[in-house]
Amino acid sequence: MPAPSPLRETLYQVIFHVDTAAGRRFDTWLIVLILASLLVVLLDSIEVIQQRYGLWFNLLEWGFTLFFAVEYLLRLYCSPRPARYAFSFFGLIDLLAVLPAFIALFYSEAQLLIVIRVIRLLRVFRVLKLRHYLVQANFLLSALRGSRQKIIVFLLSVSTLVTVFGALMYVIEGPEHGFSSIPKGIYWAVTTLTTVGFGDITPKTALGQTIATLVMITGYSIIAVPTGIFTAELANAMRQDNGLHLAHACPRCHKAPHEAMAAFCSRCGSALYPAPAPKPD
Amino acid sequence: MPAPSPLRETLYQVIFHVDTAAGRRFDTWLIVLILASLLVVLLDSIEVIQQRYGLWFNLLEWGFTLFFAVEYLLRLYCSPRPARYAFSFFGLIDLLAVLPAFIALFYSEAQLLIVIRVIRLLRVFRVLKLRHYLVQANFLLSALRGSRQKIIVFLLSVSTLVTVFGALMYVIEGPEHGFSSIPKGIYWAVTTLTTVGFGDITPKTALGQTIATLVMITGYSIIAVPTGIFTAELANAMRQDNGLHLAHACPRCHKAPHEAMAAFCSRCGSALYPAPAPKPD
Amino acid sequence: MPAPSPLRETLYQVIFHVDTAAGRRFDTWLIVLILASLLVVLLDSIEVIQQRYGLWFNLLEWGFTLFFAVEYLLRLYCSPRPARYAFSFFGLIDLLAVLPAFIALFYSEAQLLIVIRVIRLLRVFRVLKLRHYLVQANFLLSALRGSRQKIIVFLLSVSTLVTVFGALMYVIEGPEHGFSSIPKGIYWAVTTLTTVGFGDITPKTALGQTIATLVMITGYSIIAVPTGIFTAELANAMRQDNGLHLAHACPRCHKAPHEAMAAFCSRCGSALYPAPAPKPD
Amino acid sequence: MPAPSPLRETLYQVIFHVDTAAGRRFDTWLIVLILASLLVVLLDSIEVIQQRYGLWFNLLEWGFTLFFAVEYLLRLYCSPRPARYAFSFFGLIDLLAVLPAFIALFYSEAQLLIVIRVIRLLRVFRVLKLRHYLVQANFLLSALRGSRQKIIVFLLSVSTLVTVFGALMYVIEGPEHGFSSIPKGIYWAVTTLTTVGFGDITPKTALGQTIATLVMITGYSIIAVPTGIFTAELANAMRQDNGLHLAHACPRCHKAPHEAMAAFCSRCGSALYPAPAPKPD
Repeated sequence: MPAPSPLRETLYQVIFHVDTAAGRRFDTWLIVLILASLLVVLLDSIEVIQQRYGLWFNLLEWGFTLFFAVEYLLRLYCSPRPARYAFSFFGLIDLLAVLPAFIALFYSEAQLLIVIRVIRLLRVFRVLKLRHYLVQANFLLSALRGSRQKIIVFLLSVSTLVTVFGALMYVIEGPEHGFSSIPKGIYWAVTTLTTVGFGDITPKTALGQTIATLVMITGYSIIAVPTGIFTAELANAMRQDNGLHLAHACPRCHKAPHEAMAAFCSRCGSALYPAPAPKPD
Repeated sequence: MPAPSPLRETLYQVIFHVDTAAGRRFDTWLIVLILASLLVVLLDSIEVIQQRYGLWFNLLEWGFTLFFAVEYLLRLYCSPRPARYAFSFFGLIDLLAVLPAFIALFYSEAQLLIVIRVIRLLRVFRVLKLRHYLVQANFLLSALRGSRQKIIVFLLSVSTLVTVFGALMYVIEGPEHGFSSIPKGIYWAVTTLTTVGFGDITPKTALGQTIATLVMITGYSIIAVPTGIFTAELANAMRQDNGLHLAHACPRCHKAPHEAMAAFCSRCGSALYPAPAPKPD
Repeated sequence: MPAPSPLRETLYQVIFHVDTAAGRRFDTWLIVLILASLLVVLLDSIEVIQQRYGLWFNLLEWGFTLFFAVEYLLRLYCSPRPARYAFSFFGLIDLLAVLPAFIALFYSEAQLLIVIRVIRLLRVFRVLKLRHYLVQANFLLSALRGSRQKIIVFLLSVSTLVTVFGALMYVIEGPEHGFSSIPKGIYWAVTTLTTVGFGDITPKTALGQTIATLVMITGYSIIAVPTGIFTAELANAMRQDNGLHLAHACPRCHKAPHEAMAAFCSRCGSALYPAPAPKPD
Repeated sequence: MPAPSPLRETLYQVIFHVDTAAGRRFDTWLIVLILASLLVVLLDSIEVIQQRYGLWFNLLEWGFTLFFAVEYLLRLYCSPRPARYAFSFFGLIDLLAVLPAFIALFYSEAQLLIVIRVIRLLRVFRVLKLRHYLVQANFLLSALRGSRQKIIVFLLSVSTLVTVFGALMYVIEGPEHGFSSIPKGIYWAVTTLTTVGFGDITPKTALGQTIATLVMITGYSIIAVPTGIFTAELANAMRQDNGLHLAHACPRCHKAPHEAMAAFCSRCGSALYPAPAPKPD
């Protein structure tokens, strides 16, 4: 690969990094444009507003598409590995940000376009990725990753509970009270177990209401489970980061977490990093 | 008992264990079939679909029943202690998986069958039991077991609260606002305390709404209790696993469990980690 | 006070204590009767059942009242300090358990009676008090007591939030959308903030729905506060009870939590309970 | 600045402090008046009551305004730095407490006045600020401050989730099922994700209900995140206050903060609590 031209390097700094003032300014404008394009989507979906300003919204959408398209091409141009960028998660999101207006040329009534246009919001995360808030997101993600297996077991149990209760309610209440099928019963069971409680389908028989009571108490109690899992993991992750508690074990007593700067074990007093060569006594 | 024939041993390995490739393949297919049979139950309960494909679903159900019956007989045949298996929790579940189609021969409209067929889902857990996810489930179960007594006290208090509030609302609001009996009042109180809030029965009088406010605030606050109990137990269980409460014995009096950070034996006061060699001063 | 007669002493053992087999049997029967009397109240409130068995329920109520009255008089008779018992919390509850049937002689339609009869349920707690479950209740109570001040601050903030939001919604939505007064607005705000969400009153205007969104997100986020407070307190209370961590401080280094049986400080190795008289060296 | 006159000093003590009996009495009366003025606002908003006592409420409002105005002027007069007080948060709240009645002279139907009058409730916090409850509020605030960044990341993720799900539901369910625009879809998504579940808008199609199930499970699971963040922070804040991270300096190298359980200095390895006197062997 030839050495990148100065223009490409400058563009790369501005578009992909935030170390320079220009890079930060670019990112700020990008966020403003993304949010503006989102606002247009939101307002465009309100019928009263759409009827009055629909044309303007269309124009604006073309403007945003143009900008995002130029930006996408520039990203492709200045990226050191264009193919890798193009197929990365954010590369695909960037491409999706450009597509809606073009698709609309062919299918004028494609409802799906709206969702694609909303997905542009995900691009905000790319910009934020470069900022220091991500350290905190890392905490959350590592806590979530640490509790993944526990959460899968939890979700499996919840799924079983919900299926059994859904089928039970379908049998007990039946279609005449809104439980027209087992999937609908499951929908109701999820609504109840998660304490959402829409109230669009509710038990009418005494037995149904008794089981509903059981489901609600269960849901109210097991909400503790994901919370407990996550809190314990997060407390773990934060304790390890406290600076005081990095994990290098004492070579003698194997006490594992030590202050970051510790030279001697705080339990047995032996040197944590003994002389590399055996001392000639 | 005579030594098991090679066939029985191989079957036992395949059906009850996952150590071999064949065993894993068998388990995977079993899960697929269980989920497929569940899907048929779900779809069969939707009237539109049932009217079109009802016959096919019946045929499929007979297929699943045949497979599960053969599997059940094989399990009985190859199990080292057939009686013990037959009366174990999962043995009974396995038997239940076979029954619905046969019962349907005699009672064609038995609604209960649907629930029995859904219970097949529990069989998935047996298969999962053999996988490493269960270590995580053990964590959760041990945390739940540790907090059992606290949770019983909590549920007793909630039951009392709910009964008193239910009776109060029945007296205040009365049948004309949907609180037609005390059990209905209790149902409403559970709905409100657990923050589900269906909205099928709601207080209409000022006094009733004031008490409802009280119930909601109570429910919102005491949701902390099961969460707190469980989180504290789980953090406990995880900490103990963390190796933080490691058992290092005193070199003199051999007292075995010590605080994780102990430097001196709490019984005889001698250093747990004596200087490796007396310093040549 | 003269020495109690043997009969009084035996009665006192049976009625107030659970150390003897007779005492335990008495308590078990008492719980059964309390729950049976509660069941009668619940069933009596269902109109269909009341119309058929109302007379039987009346008779049963008189039976329960007779039993509870005899029990109350016996308690008064055998208690070492009858006056103190009569005015204790459970003494008053015991008296209340007897009153409803007698009041009903004079006011045949007193709705309040139902609530008084339900309050009998509280008597179950007295019986349970003597059992070992109360250790767990003590944990919960001590955690709640420890977090009392924090919870008051929290409830004050929630009250302010709810009042301001209630007034705001009354102004924005107005009586035509169900927000007919500020108290009603507050009722709605509590319903929303606690994530109960009955749906009997819901915002209809765009501005109202925006504020509702704000209230919901707030409620969803600050549910963390009581949970966090309680969990932290409970973890604290449990850690101290672990048996490993009783609080007697080392006289030299002041390390405070030690194993219950510790004789020497685990940090500095000095005796936790030095010889009472200075050692004559 | 000249020395304050004795009157101004006395007033300052009474109005701004609670150290004296007069100061405490003043604060108590102030709270009573604030709550009374709030009660008048609440009752005044109930139409039935307003029609009967509206005139009295008007008179009372003028009384409160007069009192608060005098109090405000006195605060300005006796404060050592009047300007700073006037533009402080509570200074502005105090001014707002006086305005409503005066504004009402010019705009008789200003609905906004009600909200301004309710904001008086915030003044209660100023009074409480001087009490010892604030130590607890500080705990909560410091825990909230510590988790600010994590909570921003969390709210950003929730916003994205809610926007995408809202757009999705708008496309799937459409205006005929109440999802008349994307903002309305977002409002529904927030209602569902926060487990409030009003039930004013609910999915009717199978696909919509499936996605609703997903949203509910998500909301039920991620409620763990703010709880976990806050609990971990609060436990941290309380542990640090617990004296567990006490600063005991090394007697040789004087390194000051050590792990709570450290027996040896982590920098120089010398015993933190050397033997009180070398044992005479």
